[in-house]
Amino acid sequence: MADKLPNVAVIGLGLIGSSIICATQYFGAAATVTGFDASKEVLLEAEKIGLPVNLVDDIRAAVRDADIIFLAVPVGAMAGVVKKIISNLKPGAILTDTGSTKRSVIDDINPLVLPHISFVPGHPLAGTEFSGPSAGFPTLFKNHYWLLIGDEKANSAISVIKRFCEKLGSMVEVMDANYHDKVLAITSHLPHLIAFTIVGTASDLEHDLKNDVIRFSASGFRDFTRIAASDPTMWRDVFLNNDEAVLEMLERFTEDLAFLQKAINQREGDKLLNLFKRTGEIRRSIIDIGFAKE
Amino acid sequence: MADKLPNVAVIGLGLIGSSIICATQYFGAAATVTGFDASKEVLLEAEKIGLPVNLVDDIRAAVRDADIIFLAVPVGAMAGVVKKIISNLKPGAILTDTGSTKRSVIDDINPLVLPHISFVPGHPLAGTEFSGPSAGFPTLFKNHYWLLIGDEKANSAISVIKRFCEKLGSMVEVMDANYHDKVLAITSHLPHLIAFTIVGTASDLEHDLKNDVIRFSASGFRDFTRIAASDPTMWRDVFLNNDEAVLEMLERFTEDLAFLQKAINQREGDKLLNLFKRTGEIRRSIIDIGFAKE
Repeated sequence: MADKLPNVAVIGLGLIGSSIICATQYFGAAATVTGFDASKEVLLEAEKIGLPVNLVDDIRAAVRDADIIFLAVPVGAMAGVVKKIISNLKPGAILTDTGSTKRSVIDDINPLVLPHISFVPGHPLAGTEFSGPSAGFPTLFKNHYWLLIGDEKANSAISVIKRFCEKLGSMVEVMDANYHDKVLAITSHLPHLIAFTIVGTASDLEHDLKNDVIRFSASGFRDFTRIAASDPTMWRDVFLNNDEAVLEMLERFTEDLAFLQKAINQREGDKLLNLFKRTGEIRRSIIDIGFAKE
Repeated sequence: MADKLPNVAVIGLGLIGSSIICATQYFGAAATVTGFDASKEVLLEAEKIGLPVNLVDDIRAAVRDADIIFLAVPVGAMAGVVKKIISNLKPGAILTDTGSTKRSVIDDINPLVLPHISFVPGHPLAGTEFSGPSAGFPTLFKNHYWLLIGDEKANSAISVIKRFCEKLGSMVEVMDANYHDKVLAITSHLPHLIAFTIVGTASDLEHDLKNDVIRFSASGFRDFTRIAASDPTMWRDVFLNNDEAVLEMLERFTEDLAFLQKAINQREGDKLLNLFKRTGEIRRSIIDIGFAKE
């Protein structure tokens, strides 16, 4: 398979699935690309916007000739998809997913995988707050990390997926599932939970105040509303499937917030100032590695 | 003063003060612009970058000929500045501030104002995470709200400041101080407090995990680090001076967060989904009024 381009199937035509399709075509990474979505509406939208893919409305037919199958559905829906397709996959086919949690997806899928099929858990660290086939674009993964789970030496399928993801422009790192879930809990899951919460708090305010909050939304809050506009189903599944790491980080966060609350209450300005100086340093570290502008 | 351009003095040459200077020159809004900062270092930086202003190292001399004086210092430093300059102001001069909290600034400054001077509390809803004279730019206020406090009919000085701020490109709204502090507590102060907190939580993680959090910082966390890189002294003063409204909103937020924590713990996906659908609507409202892109 190193010599010829693979046939690729993409299950789920949301932001990530449709971006994989666009990127695969854009970078010429596959011989054929087949796409399926369980929603007729989504399939119709994909057809209407001319998503560059062979659309198939039978999930088993979609994966039959595939060498690589991308599962780009909410993490809670992964196992159901695998149950439907597993006996239709070609010997040697590689299944890979794009879910934001990895421990739960592995626990769900591993028992279903047949001996002649490989499963490579994956997670592209890329996204926007938009959903659906029309949200996809070919450079979504460019210069973004794509995390794969497992041991590259023990599993040659990882190398195949790694090369494919690199063709889409991403930087691949291989790591352990539990470590992945812990890092993502603090970098992505908890920030989303907090953004959802504060925008919810604002939406519960009395009518006039709520309208003025929307009208005068300053940069802080406006950034939070963008994050809190992300796909509801996907995020429900993330929190239910990375509950342990999210709850652990949430507990630390809540303690730290209570510390600041007390500092404000007791007018301890030095405690506030010390923290605010420290947080600026984290930003500078991110700027130093080239991920944000100065 | 409606007929001729005013002499303007700006006290404090940070992001806001230096942007007022740049904007005033850019839009030709003043006859002269004088600038002062209590820090010799900041004055030198302003001189070095050629900030378009008459730099003066004596605060009393800086305000002597001014028709309008902008106080662009942290809210905790307002009263000290007013004490120094108040007896040097021309009869008819108008003092205005740019602080992010209004109730406390009014309580601090009103007792110091002399009968022949007007004070118009103000707050431009504009900013970036950068600080100092080199952070200023002439279009910072363009298409942003500039909130003024008071009763426009009872106080003609408000109209003068309103016209001036509009010349700098901003949209002016006149409102009550307590209402201002409540709206800002939820749109700006609480989001900043939360961003400072979560970035602080991350910076307390053990060394390797912290490094990977920085390396794999996804969009959620990265947005928070930008917010949490804002000027420490300014934000310490904001929380100490709008403590009542911030603590009230923080209490609501903490309750809402506990609700979600419980929902994750008890695997109540519907509760999560309902909230996440609701928060998307707030984003759409902000898009509808043209403050964010679809």
